[in-house]
Amino acid sequence: MIVLGIDPGISLTGWGVIDAKSQNNLSVLNYGCITTLPKDSLTDRLKYINLELQSVIDKYRPEAAAIEQLFFLKKSASVASVGQARGAIVLTVALNKIPLFEYNPRLVKIALTGYGSADKYQMQHMVKTFLRLKEIPKPDDAADALAMAICHINTAKSEVKMIRR
Amino acid sequence: MIVLGIDPGISLTGWGVIDAKSQNNLSVLNYGCITTLPKDSLTDRLKYINLELQSVIDKYRPEAAAIEQLFFLKKSASVASVGQARGAIVLTVALNKIPLFEYNPRLVKIALTGYGSADKYQMQHMVKTFLRLKEIPKPDDAADALAMAICHINTAKSEVKMIRR
Repeated sequence: MIVLGIDPGISLTGWGVIDAKSQNNLSVLNYGCITTLPKDSLTDRLKYINLELQSVIDKYRPEAAAIEQLFFLKKSASVASVGQARGAIVLTVALNKIPLFEYNPRLVKIALTGYGSADKYQMQHMVKTFLRLKEIPKPDDAADALAMAICHINTAKSEVKMIRR
Repeated sequence: MIVLGIDPGISLTGWGVIDAKSQNNLSVLNYGCITTLPKDSLTDRLKYINLELQSVIDKYRPEAAAIEQLFFLKKSASVASVGQARGAIVLTVALNKIPLFEYNPRLVKIALTGYGSADKYQMQHMVKTFLRLKEIPKPDDAADALAMAICHINTAKSEVKMIRR
């Protein structure tokens, strides 16, 4: 099963593609970041995110996509810009008929570390371990996206309730 | 010039299409509302908004689109859901290569009534007057979308500074 994890943002969208050949055999196909500049129009930024994500989808043909649930505790200005990027990303995934799964951030932590309050370093360390990488993937947004994909694979296998809406 | 006005929302997205044959000759081509249900997944809701908006674009081939700037004073939960709908809408417009203009709500009021604190009824009354309609367009979201399109036409003609990002 090929899974695409996404960490959406208007300036930085992390993505990671994992091939899960078996429950214990995960391999990274690729990961990276889509960056857009504040000087560009919202329209151009969303169009660029769509274009780059489409090329990742065309190349790896993921069978599922995983994204973090949008939380409302942040400043509303950042919720607005993440929300718009997220809307464009969800639409891009939907237009490709790829099932999209949303996960609670706490569930992602439990799925990777067994601990709902794990910190960023613990999470990144587990991403490295699960994927048998020599180093922690950079930047953080790409590591977060890979964590989402791993969460989807791990919760699907252990039947932790998946949160989909 | 054919202008599409949009009032985005996850449950209700108002839209209105105006043909401005001359500065004082505006006519409504059509208006309406795209509604989605909370019971449906976010993916399905955004896909449906995209599909319906695409059919409006295909039918009327607007040369410009106008949308209200997203403000951050509302509850962050509603900013998040409006933001996601708005992101999907902006991407849909962008993929059709239609220039999109964003307007400050106060500017929209000034463009229609000459008064930046106009209330909903004053705005709807001016929409009816500008478009020489017998009644105020319903629902409110469609009237708001028509107001956006009129604002674009009026500010373009009087050279009030357009806010585009």
